[in-house]
Amino acid sequence: MIRFNNDYSFGAHERIIKKLSEINGESYGGYGIDDWCLKAADVIKGLIGDKSAGVHFLVGGTQTNFTVIAAALRPFQGVIAADSGHINVHETGAIENSGHKVITVKGENGKITAEQIEKEAKAYVKSDIKEHIVCPKMVYISFPTEYGTIYSKKELKEISEVCHKYNMYLFIDGARLSYGLTAPECDITIKDIAEYTDVFYIGGTKCGALFGEAVVITNPEINENFRSYMKQNGAMLAKGWLLGVQFYELLKDGLYFEIAKRANEYALMIKKAFNSLGIPSYIESCTNQQFFIVPNSLLERLKKYTYEFEKEIDENNSCVRFCTDWNTKEEEVRGLIDEIKK
Amino acid sequence: MIRFNNDYSFGAHERIIKKLSEINGESYGGYGIDDWCLKAADVIKGLIGDKSAGVHFLVGGTQTNFTVIAAALRPFQGVIAADSGHINVHETGAIENSGHKVITVKGENGKITAEQIEKEAKAYVKSDIKEHIVCPKMVYISFPTEYGTIYSKKELKEISEVCHKYNMYLFIDGARLSYGLTAPECDITIKDIAEYTDVFYIGGTKCGALFGEAVVITNPEINENFRSYMKQNGAMLAKGWLLGVQFYELLKDGLYFEIAKRANEYALMIKKAFNSLGIPSYIESCTNQQFFIVPNSLLERLKKYTYEFEKEIDENNSCVRFCTDWNTKEEEVRGLIDEIKK
Amino acid sequence: MIRFNNDYSFGAHERIIKKLSEINGESYGGYGIDDWCLKAADVIKGLIGDKSAGVHFLVGGTQTNFTVIAAALRPFQGVIAADSGHINVHETGAIENSGHKVITVKGENGKITAEQIEKEAKAYVKSDIKEHIVCPKMVYISFPTEYGTIYSKKELKEISEVCHKYNMYLFIDGARLSYGLTAPECDITIKDIAEYTDVFYIGGTKCGALFGEAVVITNPEINENFRSYMKQNGAMLAKGWLLGVQFYELLKDGLYFEIAKRANEYALMIKKAFNSLGIPSYIESCTNQQFFIVPNSLLERLKKYTYEFEKEIDENNSCVRFCTDWNTKEEEVRGLIDEIKK
Amino acid sequence: MIRFNNDYSFGAHERIIKKLSEINGESYGGYGIDDWCLKAADVIKGLIGDKSAGVHFLVGGTQTNFTVIAAALRPFQGVIAADSGHINVHETGAIENSGHKVITVKGENGKITAEQIEKEAKAYVKSDIKEHIVCPKMVYISFPTEYGTIYSKKELKEISEVCHKYNMYLFIDGARLSYGLTAPECDITIKDIAEYTDVFYIGGTKCGALFGEAVVITNPEINENFRSYMKQNGAMLAKGWLLGVQFYELLKDGLYFEIAKRANEYALMIKKAFNSLGIPSYIESCTNQQFFIVPNSLLERLKKYTYEFEKEIDENNSCVRFCTDWNTKEEEVRGLIDEIKK
Repeated sequence: MIRFNNDYSFGAHERIIKKLSEINGESYGGYGIDDWCLKAADVIKGLIGDKSAGVHFLVGGTQTNFTVIAAALRPFQGVIAADSGHINVHETGAIENSGHKVITVKGENGKITAEQIEKEAKAYVKSDIKEHIVCPKMVYISFPTEYGTIYSKKELKEISEVCHKYNMYLFIDGARLSYGLTAPECDITIKDIAEYTDVFYIGGTKCGALFGEAVVITNPEINENFRSYMKQNGAMLAKGWLLGVQFYELLKDGLYFEIAKRANEYALMIKKAFNSLGIPSYIESCTNQQFFIVPNSLLERLKKYTYEFEKEIDENNSCVRFCTDWNTKEEEVRGLIDEIKK
Repeated sequence: MIRFNNDYSFGAHERIIKKLSEINGESYGGYGIDDWCLKAADVIKGLIGDKSAGVHFLVGGTQTNFTVIAAALRPFQGVIAADSGHINVHETGAIENSGHKVITVKGENGKITAEQIEKEAKAYVKSDIKEHIVCPKMVYISFPTEYGTIYSKKELKEISEVCHKYNMYLFIDGARLSYGLTAPECDITIKDIAEYTDVFYIGGTKCGALFGEAVVITNPEINENFRSYMKQNGAMLAKGWLLGVQFYELLKDGLYFEIAKRANEYALMIKKAFNSLGIPSYIESCTNQQFFIVPNSLLERLKKYTYEFEKEIDENNSCVRFCTDWNTKEEEVRGLIDEIKK
Repeated sequence: MIRFNNDYSFGAHERIIKKLSEINGESYGGYGIDDWCLKAADVIKGLIGDKSAGVHFLVGGTQTNFTVIAAALRPFQGVIAADSGHINVHETGAIENSGHKVITVKGENGKITAEQIEKEAKAYVKSDIKEHIVCPKMVYISFPTEYGTIYSKKELKEISEVCHKYNMYLFIDGARLSYGLTAPECDITIKDIAEYTDVFYIGGTKCGALFGEAVVITNPEINENFRSYMKQNGAMLAKGWLLGVQFYELLKDGLYFEIAKRANEYALMIKKAFNSLGIPSYIESCTNQQFFIVPNSLLERLKKYTYEFEKEIDENNSCVRFCTDWNTKEEEVRGLIDEIKK
Repeated sequence: MIRFNNDYSFGAHERIIKKLSEINGESYGGYGIDDWCLKAADVIKGLIGDKSAGVHFLVGGTQTNFTVIAAALRPFQGVIAADSGHINVHETGAIENSGHKVITVKGENGKITAEQIEKEAKAYVKSDIKEHIVCPKMVYISFPTEYGTIYSKKELKEISEVCHKYNMYLFIDGARLSYGLTAPECDITIKDIAEYTDVFYIGGTKCGALFGEAVVITNPEINENFRSYMKQNGAMLAKGWLLGVQFYELLKDGLYFEIAKRANEYALMIKKAFNSLGIPSYIESCTNQQFFIVPNSLLERLKKYTYEFEKEIDENNSCVRFCTDWNTKEEEVRGLIDEIKK
């Protein structure tokens, strides 16, 4: 089977494995207080051009989402998200379990707008029964979104402005950040991300690492006791240097972006192949996740390949996701395309 | 000012005040272990024809909602509700604060359907990533709804059946139960309510008592440790007999229903008055809450009366709520109607 | 049976019942936004000499405790309390249910010391693994304590100073505040209480009201969104004026203190009677709760009276509590004393 | 610096690193549904002789503790633990954050007794105000304890019996399980552990793995929805096979126990060296953690070695911990001993 079903089915980029082997004989301080975490944090601070940011290394995405949100919000406050947002649909209610409402707004292609956010914020501000309703205090967006789409710089700036106008935090889930930032259509840099948000994370798990998400906090209110929240939420790895060294290796010379860029290119090759046969995209994505409405007859022919079934469109067609990643090989993509075009 | 803005702006029915005065010199056991609670529970068990039900007296609606839900659900489970449901919009995230997701479905006139519920339940049952999503384990509906509408017996039966087919609890918020059960269109009895649900409550606060909600639990799974949940959630009144005696007084001879029936009649008189002038109902309600789309010019003329502003419809018209209650006087209603018709 | 088992077995002082009857025909705004709450708050602000304090009326003690603590603490913070503190032993884990650790220190006669508190605070401040341990951010004491004992002004001042030295809030549970402030040995005024604490409450339930606790918040950090916490925690009574009017009636002319002072006198008469027969106090209390080590043979003779059994001391003796309250009658006390002395 | 300060300062046993490198090019299913997790679970089921047990792989200890406890308890229930238990003192209130009280009993050398547990359980069972107090539903012990001590088979059996007599779960934190089971004094097998408990875990992080804790659940009540709790609590690693393969490698041929046994031997050599010079153990431990009361003058001479400072004993002496682990080398131990004996 050749896997196109998701972007977390292989270990790590070989340079990471090699590095982990090399340092295995060295001893380090625990809980993220070590040289690798320090070095990785320095690289990240350099990338975003902000030496005062807080940088913390956590293990996985759900964990990162609820830890960040728990650190930022008080019990009567909630977080605005697209209805398709990962925190709303695929985390077993982790945000609610930590006591906070996810205030959903209807996403379009996984994205929400500054206007939608302002509507929610304004409703609270103008309410004369504030104590009866949840206070929206944070906005959660993913970049790229769960549908592979990305925000433009203009859109992001508008969202950021509306957040800060209404005294709300902006939080970007960057589980697939590298794919977003290297998409051909992307006009946003990682510096922009840092500038426009209060907190975001640089995804490792889906972007070349064995595991790990690097949280970057530019708002000191959220950073202040963040390590206490990490420990309390089981998000402080005992051997924290395992995270630091992976992010250092990925980020020190741009490997992180290089491998994502290639994955995007492969994804767009697949998209082109499908579309050229008149098989439409379900959503127009420019990153490593591609959604198509595919005739079931064709799907049957693609049995050598795994993909993710999304939903039935009609009797004869299904919506499916094909996903490339940092480890996808050109020959795998070409093989798939040949098979599609047969 | 003559109040039509809500149904909780007066103390209690005079019989209750009288009774509270009478027993003020008597001493009782604390925390709901007393003769009045016992007697009130017996009356309720008689009304529903189920001697084995658990009956508990709590103070207010939000408290009752989150205590019942906390007692029924495990952390990975959520509760299905209409988007307009009280627990979703007017309780400051109390359900989420206790760790549970409110899974919203789009209500029509405040009501949801068995079909909508089944869709949610089926999605979970058929999911092959159940551990990633919230398990719907309870359905919350209000009777009457926040818009004053009611479910028919057929609708309620269908909802009950789909709940139990999918091993979910059905919970009815009866904050205004008396108004629902005495509505002219209502074909449901309190026995039906008890039969079709796992837990419901008989509202006191809005229906003639100073305060209080009588929770009736027919499913022993929910009843088992309910008193522990009450105490933990601050919902066990030290002088519990104050609740018991109020419900006893309201329910022993039908006063509870009688005063609500009259309030409904008054509400429908108001409705008729508005409608007859071509002022439409925003929603067709048959209970004590009536929503109209009223010209602002008319509203200005009604300044002697309070009503609840809901939202702007257009430049010239507003959606407003007029509410009668157990204490509304015929002359107040006639006065309002005269004013409307002027 | 003549009740000495607790101080919440009768309704309310007759003046309260009378007042509630009088205003029953009046309509008021809901949720604590009404004239009675305003007037009661004004009286309280006058008593403490602080016009800027936040005053909020809640229904019961457990509810008040967890609502105040939830409003004050962040998830990684805990509250220091005596091991015998009400929040530690008699609230079904309500504080933990809201996510916070109760950090217990060993009380002596229900009291804790500034020294004990400083030890806990210092341990955190000096720790180099702060993120692994709970941060003590609040100190909870009860006045009088669960054993009827009271803090001296010196003790309270020291506790207050140590709290503020370590940036912790001081919270006084005043469920029985009136009995404490009117005890013969008490050298503290309600002004002192307000000055030394960040938040405290004036108990109603056990001190002459049907129910109710008046929370007084002098620290704006805690007051800021307190009403949101009240609503979220089911602690905002729909008909809030029922609370306001009770506190107004109790406090406007000192009735609150007068009835407690008498109860203390009766309690000390009972104490004197027991002690004079060589029956020792279990703890030396100067308020309405008295604990004795009583021969079981005597207890059998007192069958006409209820008391609270605390624990077995040995084969022949039991520790029991006799409790007077605002409603205790002199003849009841004299009857009991006669019976004791027989 | 030669590290004896803790047992998590090195990566993983070389066989694990080698294995991770080997399989890095292979693709696997996500979230613990893969062949390595299956194989590791099979080995574990073989070791405990119970094919029906649930086996789940989590990342770290704090995470495992609160996830297991959240899965087992209802909100009104708490967990009994030694005051020195890890969940009580070193997890930033993670258990309370998930809503549950840690009911502490005074440990002796980190251990608690069946008698102490029964006292707590009986107090609840006999209470006539059950709804006011926390229900003890689980007992948490660590094996070995935080002080390196172990329970005998007799002690464990008694604890197990009292737990089940009172319908409580027994949960063993086995973060250092291998060191406990291979201690010279240990008369317990891993089969016993499985038999006597409802749930326990086989620690990886401190016992030769990069990270990971293998939870073994023999009580189906706890196992039923455990994966939902894992996901909700951020404890389900996306690339779950990284955990499976580590435990498979450690457990398939006894490596896990072999490396711990050696670490214990080294620890006891150190103990012998100290004790032979009249330097007493603070606690008599038979596992890899050793606590001594060491003259500060000697400590100054040991500057080449790291150890954990525990507390000041007096002006001249300190309590310190020396810790060996799976990676400790004989020459390091001999060097330390030579230095001690100089």
